[in-house]
Amino acid sequence: MPVNPEARIEVSAFSWVPPFAAGAVRDLRVRWALEEAGKDYRERLHDVRERRDDAYFEEQPFGQVPAYRDDEVQLFESGAIVLHIAQQSRTLLPIDTEGRARGISWIFAALNSIEPSLQELAALDIFYVKEPWAGAKRPLVEKQAKERLSRLADWLGDKPYLEGEFTAGDLMMTTVLRLARHTDLVEQYPALDAYVARCTGRPAFKRALDAQLAPINATNAREGEMA
Amino acid sequence: MPVNPEARIEVSAFSWVPPFAAGAVRDLRVRWALEEAGKDYRERLHDVRERRDDAYFEEQPFGQVPAYRDDEVQLFESGAIVLHIAQQSRTLLPIDTEGRARGISWIFAALNSIEPSLQELAALDIFYVKEPWAGAKRPLVEKQAKERLSRLADWLGDKPYLEGEFTAGDLMMTTVLRLARHTDLVEQYPALDAYVARCTGRPAFKRALDAQLAPINATNAREGEMA
Repeated sequence: MPVNPEARIEVSAFSWVPPFAAGAVRDLRVRWALEEAGKDYRERLHDVRERRDDAYFEEQPFGQVPAYRDDEVQLFESGAIVLHIAQQSRTLLPIDTEGRARGISWIFAALNSIEPSLQELAALDIFYVKEPWAGAKRPLVEKQAKERLSRLADWLGDKPYLEGEFTAGDLMMTTVLRLARHTDLVEQYPALDAYVARCTGRPAFKRALDAQLAPINATNAREGEMA
Repeated sequence: MPVNPEARIEVSAFSWVPPFAAGAVRDLRVRWALEEAGKDYRERLHDVRERRDDAYFEEQPFGQVPAYRDDEVQLFESGAIVLHIAQQSRTLLPIDTEGRARGISWIFAALNSIEPSLQELAALDIFYVKEPWAGAKRPLVEKQAKERLSRLADWLGDKPYLEGEFTAGDLMMTTVLRLARHTDLVEQYPALDAYVARCTGRPAFKRALDAQLAPINATNAREGEMA
């Protein structure tokens, strides 16, 4: 669905982020979920270089993106927002109780059993690469990440998605695995590598990624002209 | 509710953990949620010192506790399990759509905006305290934790709970804030300190904590006799 200034759903996002973050900011998860669910949305853009105003902290207590609102609810945390969208979309969660619960387990597993080590690895390699402790700690974090990725690959086996059919759990897991895209960690597990390619090959992912990048690229172009 | 070997709900937990982990293992969240919801459950105990068997990885892909099953579903990830229980309990989530969504936002916020820095702080102080990089990295992690706790304290203000009434979001946030109980970090924010005391003062929390400690204490007593 196109970004639509008249849409009833609003998602906050960034009009500019540094190059390493472009394509990986957490509003991507929400845009992707909305694309899978066939719902259009309007953007509310903030520049990551500028302080969010006090009113924004009323919506997002930590000042992060994304925040979300529709006619019924005002939400924060990408996990909660994706879950909210998924609960209204049969593309994102099956209708049977067991299937829904399994999909939701994988949303939490992505965020809490996989993301911590991959997020820390990205932080060590990108934000703190010049700190002496970063290199010293890195082998431990990589080991922890590989233990989890190995278990995840075992679980996936030759299934196309974590529970057979695509769910919001796969959506979340894919965005988490992409946090390691500056390394070859995921490629070390062929099942996971193929899985990420399968998920990011979905047209809804491509539209979401393009939509996140559009305002960032526009800012870069505008500031390039001014420089 | 008492732990009941005949209950239809099963929760996996540990029969023994090291002293620093006793009272902080993640099955506490599930036990607490079940206590608030007034549901009894049976335990399936594993010794953390022993390798979980292959069949357990079919239930919990990363071999962690808790795993959960009832007549309808088989789940893993404490966040997903608490949410599943909360969706059936008006003590844990209000019935209106907006209120439910807010409570769920706070479950995710606890796990994803607060837990990472507090969990890392605990790991630096407990697991890795002898590593040279641990002391070097600690000030940064403490700074990140304080930024988040400060925002959380601002949000809470003089409300008794994050959204006014107690929800599963408060349950999860409390168990996350307790990860820093080896420090005085939470005490530095009087609103948060009082909030944790308020939440852990609930009878359901006390029953859950006692239930987690019971098998661990029994193992310690038995092994003390054998030593």
